[in-house]
Amino acid sequence: MSETEVEAPASPAEEIAAALAQPDGDPRAALAGRQAADIATALEALPTADALAALRALDTARQANVFGYLKRKAQARLGAALDRGERAAIVGAMSHDERADLYRALNEKGQEALLGVLARAEREDLRRLAAWPEGTVGSIMTSDYAFLWPNMTAPEALEALRRQAVDSETVYTALVADGDYRLLGVLSLRDLLLAGDKARVEAIMDRDPVTVRADADREDAAQIIGRYDLLVLPVVDAEGRMVGIVTQDDAFDIVEEEATEDALRGASVGALDADVLDTPLAILYRARVGWLVLLVFGSMFSGAGLAAFEGTIAAHMSLLFFLPLLIGSGGNAGAQSATLTVRALATGDVRPADYGRMMVREVAVAVGLGLTMAFAIAIAGLLRADAPVLTVVALSMTLIVLIGSLLGLTLPFLLQRAGLDPATASGPLVTSLCDVTGVLIYFGIATLLLPV
Amino acid sequence: MSETEVEAPASPAEEIAAALAQPDGDPRAALAGRQAADIATALEALPTADALAALRALDTARQANVFGYLKRKAQARLGAALDRGERAAIVGAMSHDERADLYRALNEKGQEALLGVLARAEREDLRRLAAWPEGTVGSIMTSDYAFLWPNMTAPEALEALRRQAVDSETVYTALVADGDYRLLGVLSLRDLLLAGDKARVEAIMDRDPVTVRADADREDAAQIIGRYDLLVLPVVDAEGRMVGIVTQDDAFDIVEEEATEDALRGASVGALDADVLDTPLAILYRARVGWLVLLVFGSMFSGAGLAAFEGTIAAHMSLLFFLPLLIGSGGNAGAQSATLTVRALATGDVRPADYGRMMVREVAVAVGLGLTMAFAIAIAGLLRADAPVLTVVALSMTLIVLIGSLLGLTLPFLLQRAGLDPATASGPLVTSLCDVTGVLIYFGIATLLLPV
Repeated sequence: MSETEVEAPASPAEEIAAALAQPDGDPRAALAGRQAADIATALEALPTADALAALRALDTARQANVFGYLKRKAQARLGAALDRGERAAIVGAMSHDERADLYRALNEKGQEALLGVLARAEREDLRRLAAWPEGTVGSIMTSDYAFLWPNMTAPEALEALRRQAVDSETVYTALVADGDYRLLGVLSLRDLLLAGDKARVEAIMDRDPVTVRADADREDAAQIIGRYDLLVLPVVDAEGRMVGIVTQDDAFDIVEEEATEDALRGASVGALDADVLDTPLAILYRARVGWLVLLVFGSMFSGAGLAAFEGTIAAHMSLLFFLPLLIGSGGNAGAQSATLTVRALATGDVRPADYGRMMVREVAVAVGLGLTMAFAIAIAGLLRADAPVLTVVALSMTLIVLIGSLLGLTLPFLLQRAGLDPATASGPLVTSLCDVTGVLIYFGIATLLLPV
Repeated sequence: MSETEVEAPASPAEEIAAALAQPDGDPRAALAGRQAADIATALEALPTADALAALRALDTARQANVFGYLKRKAQARLGAALDRGERAAIVGAMSHDERADLYRALNEKGQEALLGVLARAEREDLRRLAAWPEGTVGSIMTSDYAFLWPNMTAPEALEALRRQAVDSETVYTALVADGDYRLLGVLSLRDLLLAGDKARVEAIMDRDPVTVRADADREDAAQIIGRYDLLVLPVVDAEGRMVGIVTQDDAFDIVEEEATEDALRGASVGALDADVLDTPLAILYRARVGWLVLLVFGSMFSGAGLAAFEGTIAAHMSLLFFLPLLIGSGGNAGAQSATLTVRALATGDVRPADYGRMMVREVAVAVGLGLTMAFAIAIAGLLRADAPVLTVVALSMTLIVLIGSLLGLTLPFLLQRAGLDPATASGPLVTSLCDVTGVLIYFGIATLLLPV
């Protein structure tokens, strides 16, 4: 290794890509013992012909596994280059939820082609899964769950899970249902292993599993899985019939995606479908420009406020010195309490009913913060201004921090109540609001207390 | 089957608390079929005597399970009220990582008492786990993993997992090691079920499992589990000996905690140990005041900038009208690109080496945004100012949005390079920086272009 390389060592995917790029290398050897996710990342970086040769060195189950990890663009590129037979084998072996994701990302012609290579039962399953609207539990669940009948004995159930092991997303939690597919309970493989040979499934299953409706928000599923540490969350329809499962790794992805979505929304950026590096510039521009322009017109109120107090400002130019400090502090305090509230609502630590308690606590903290800040700014301003101006500044600071904090606390609750995403409140929106109130409070107090 | 509805008006925990509060109710009946997490939430809300009576209605395994879900405060309160024998039974049955968490939260006297009720081997295990510093993989791993020898046959391995099922965190992935406890591979229960009776563990195990070092950052473990969809991530020491596992639900908690921590840090709030409602007001105050005061002194530069341009401002008071719009827009654009960068770095979508590519793309987007904003502000200002001032404003807006965006992009990379958390960049810090540059750019251009 050359000495100039101080950056991190090559990632597993880079190692695989390098091994595959050897002119006389054996792809089978290069891929042996490698993780599907790393192989997928390596294939994305390779020319189509090389990627195809590598993919063909794997057996069908692993091909499907790797294919599921590919990004949409690479799926389309490699999918188009495969023979019809290969495509059918891979799509047939993919897990049902990943297949449905792929289907949703295709155009109509691609969707037809995908349906064309599937057997009839699979085709209907795919159509059903893909029909769930984006953001619902149905859109992220999978239908290849393990299933047991209630009257099976433990050895029968174990044998049934053995048979289902190849085609199921997981066999560690099986759903149990009656003849009408109404969910009766769930059985963990662990409890099955601990049961005696005579025990029947209905006697050892958990009869009160937590479930979620397919038409619920996908965030609900993630929150439930996180709260109860579930490996598998059964999904039911309005009649209590089982329709799928959401697994813990799905919930993991949702939490990460929602955290990103919330963070972006909080910074007034629209949601992005792909990684920031893969997103076309025009989409990035569009995700950002809307709020920015809206906030320009919003901050016109601040400007108008300033203009209204032109007389006061002209008479006391030293007031200007403190303007960025005051409105900045209000915005910062507001952003702090908005973010605390948004995260607490997102994780379920705080519920809408807690608003009153949160408010009382926020007033106490914000008064403390405001007084501290007033003191800090008075010190900072000693050399810049006389006592009357400093009094106005300190008084304004206390009020601006208090009002900013209360705005930051209240806005997320209001947005949630209106059915909007509270995360929208946490960044530039609350900052802009605090700017306007800051200008009005500051120059309002100055006009009242200072001679013009 | 009763459905556990999480969104319903009365939460499951509230239902349990209400059932337990019935004067002549049977706690056993009130708790039957309930989730441990819900029981824990209910117990937290009850008086100690009632909570104790309810806890005593459960068997030891479930007691330990519920106890693990309790918040620290309730653990301390109920733990102190239990008999020594009960305490020993519960602590003995708790999963090893939760027991270590409990131990870490106790004072020295409490720690002594906890060690006192454990058998010697357990005591040493607990000391070892609790010794890992906060934030490391070691501090979140658990040592109650399932273990197999490489030369076991499939039926022997299945029998071994049966024996370990009660005391292990999970039996769905078992570690395989040699006589020196050096990790040789992992075996999933699924592969074990699919193996023939003659197969030996070493022949069917995964010989190239992803592992993590115990002294690595806990976020690394979460990222690895998320990338490879692992149920269990084996943890090894510097010599490759197995020391524990991190499970998917641990990773889930970490992602949620880190998202909260990043969001708070981005809003210049210090990390909190507990829910915002459970955090003492003094701690909340302290978590917020530091950055606020620091930023006051930071924005003194903006104030000083304004003061330096007093002459220009006095000659063209209409410039003031646009000040909040301009510095607000720069801050907003900066917050947008900072947040995009922070999230992309946090999820691993973008690596430090991508800075150049990100920069080129950001310039393109930011120039587009800046021109759009210049146009918007020129329209907004038509009635307020004459052509020379509008020219200054439009020019400043383009530059301010561009510089703000580039600051927002660069700051997280710089912080990461310096070994600090990039999330610190995304909120008030970048906004304050943009304020200063905005003031200098705006009045600098005005002084250059407008007659004084």
